[in-house]
Amino acid sequence: MPKFIDVHSGFVGITQDQLSAAHQRDLDIQAAEGVTFTNAWLDPVSGKAFCLSEGPDKEAVQRVHEKAGHPAEAIYEVPVEV
Amino acid sequence: MPKFIDVHSGFVGITQDQLSAAHQRDLDIQAAEGVTFTNAWLDPVSGKAFCLSEGPDKEAVQRVHEKAGHPAEAIYEVPVEV
Repeated sequence: MPKFIDVHSGFVGITQDQLSAAHQRDLDIQAAEGVTFTNAWLDPVSGKAFCLSEGPDKEAVQRVHEKAGHPAEAIYEVPVEV
Repeated sequence: MPKFIDVHSGFVGITQDQLSAAHQRDLDIQAAEGVTFTNAWLDPVSGKAFCLSEGPDKEAVQRVHEKAGHPAEAIYEVPVEV
């Protein structure tokens, strides 16, 4: 299954609880798109967030994020990894 | 130890072996800066790469990448994670 890293902006000042809640909204609906979000990392100073996921394609990843209310600004398929 | 995600551009067409070699150059010198690179993900189509690391600060992470010949275009401290 392809892996993806997606990037969000605008999460300035977001707390651990808020990130967990946002991530949970993805988890709650991801199965319908065949996507599995595995990690999310957030810089609350710049507001940048990065999610790692597996799924069929970028569009499926974005559909989950859109339905959860936080569309990604960019999604990259990352088939090369160390 | 703080965690960081750093972003690189320009790695269009980079292969698994090339990413492994570039990552190894970081690993070979990271101890001097107290940095540990744990993961790197690459999209060879867009040329974007993302590294996850732990270290004392962003500047230490960048010094390793600079000495290895591939400075990051941005480094984010990511204290919030799920």
